[in-house]
Amino acid sequence: MLIGKVVGSVVSTRKSEKLIGNKFMVVELAEKMSNGGNQMIAIDNIGAGIGEFVLIATGSAARIGCDMEKVPIDAAIVGIIDDGRQWMQK
Amino acid sequence: MLIGKVVGSVVSTRKSEKLIGNKFMVVELAEKMSNGGNQMIAIDNIGAGIGEFVLIATGSAARIGCDMEKVPIDAAIVGIIDDGRQWMQK
Amino acid sequence: MLIGKVVGSVVSTRKSEKLIGNKFMVVELAEKMSNGGNQMIAIDNIGAGIGEFVLIATGSAARIGCDMEKVPIDAAIVGIIDDGRQWMQK
Amino acid sequence: MLIGKVVGSVVSTRKSEKLIGNKFMVVELAEKMSNGGNQMIAIDNIGAGIGEFVLIATGSAARIGCDMEKVPIDAAIVGIIDDGRQWMQK
Amino acid sequence: MLIGKVVGSVVSTRKSEKLIGNKFMVVELAEKMSNGGNQMIAIDNIGAGIGEFVLIATGSAARIGCDMEKVPIDAAIVGIIDDGRQWMQK
Repeated sequence: MLIGKVVGSVVSTRKSEKLIGNKFMVVELAEKMSNGGNQMIAIDNIGAGIGEFVLIATGSAARIGCDMEKVPIDAAIVGIIDDGRQWMQK
Repeated sequence: MLIGKVVGSVVSTRKSEKLIGNKFMVVELAEKMSNGGNQMIAIDNIGAGIGEFVLIATGSAARIGCDMEKVPIDAAIVGIIDDGRQWMQK
Repeated sequence: MLIGKVVGSVVSTRKSEKLIGNKFMVVELAEKMSNGGNQMIAIDNIGAGIGEFVLIATGSAARIGCDMEKVPIDAAIVGIIDDGRQWMQK
Repeated sequence: MLIGKVVGSVVSTRKSEKLIGNKFMVVELAEKMSNGGNQMIAIDNIGAGIGEFVLIATGSAARIGCDMEKVPIDAAIVGIIDDGRQWMQK
Repeated sequence: MLIGKVVGSVVSTRKSEKLIGNKFMVVELAEKMSNGGNQMIAIDNIGAGIGEFVLIATGSAARIGCDMEKVPIDAAIVGIIDDGRQWMQK
C-alpha cells in the first residue's frame, strides 16, 4: 500500500454507470513512495477530507477488497493515517 | 486511476478477434501521474473525443469493470473529467 | 496497452511445459510509453514479424484475454498497428 | 518479490473494517529493487520487527497468498531474510 | 515477461508456510527491461543456476501459471534463455 495526502477531487459527469456514487480523490503520494509521478486518483470509501493522510490500496485489491468487484477502479483509500505527515517527508 | 488527455487513436486491422469493435485511444497522462513514459493506449467505453480529459482504469479493472472479462485489454477510459485541465499541469 | 516494435525473439529450450509452442518476441516500447526500461518479452498470438509495430496487453489480460489462463505469461502481442511508426517517435 | 528493511509502522484508527487487526509496516526497499520510490506499506504476517530484512510479495499475491482474499491489501511481508543486508546495498 | 541473469539466492528461515520448499533467486534484469531498480526475487521452477539467463513471469502469472495459485509469490523463473547474453547488454 502507499501513503498519500488528499489534495483535491475530480468531477466526472459522463462516466461508466458502475462508477456512479463514487468520489474520485486526487492523492499526492509520499515522495519516498512514488516513482516519478506522484499523484493518482483513488476512490474514497472512508470519508477522507482534503488535507488528510491516507492509506491507498492499488490494483485488484481496490475492487475486491472494497466489495466493488465489477467496478472499474484500480485504487482506493482504505484508511486514514493517524501519523501520516512524517512519512510524506523526503 | 489516472487522468489523461486523449491525443489520438490507433488503427489495428490485424488483431485478436476479441478486440474487434473496440476503439484504441492514445492518452497522454497528466505529468504528475506518469512515471517517465507519459502515454498509454486505452479502450474507450464512454465516447471520449480527441482533446478530452479522461479517467483511466488500469489492470484487471479495465477488463472486469468494463464487462470485457475475457478481452486482452489492460486500460480503459471510464469517465470524462469535467475539470481535467488543472490536473494535467505540472 | 502499449505500442512497441518487434526487434527480435528469444529461444528457451528449457522452460515451463505450459510455454511450449509459444513464440517469445522482444518488443521495444514506444519511448513515450516506457518507464526507463524500454524492452519487454511478449508472447505472439497474431503472427507479428520483426520490424512490425504492435499493440501489447500486459498483466492478467495477456493470460485471460488470450485464452491461456493457466500459462505463465504477463504480456502478449494482441494486434498489429497499421500506423505505428508515428507513435514510436519521441 | 522484493527485499526491504522494516523501518517503522503506521497507525490508522479510521480504516476499512476488513483491515482491523492488521499491522502496517513501512518497508524501505533494497536500492536495486526500487524504481525511484523506495518505501511501501506492507501487511505483516510473519512478526517482523523494525530493522529486520524481509521478503515482500506484491499485488494479488498478497491477498490470495496470505488467505486474505477479500481484504484491500496489495503488499505483504511473507518472510524474514536471513542474509538480507548484502542485498540492501547499492 | 522480462529477461534477467541469476546472480544469487536468499535464505528465509522464518517465512509463510506456503513458501516452504521454494527457492528464492536474486535476478538482475536486463538493463533495457528494468525501470531504475534492476533486481528482483523470483521463485525458481526450472532449476536455473547462478549465471544463467532466464525468462521471468511477473504478477498473477507467477502464481497461476506455475500451479501455485494460493502461494504469495509475484515473480517466477519460467525458462532458461539460450541466447540471453545479447539481451542483457545496454
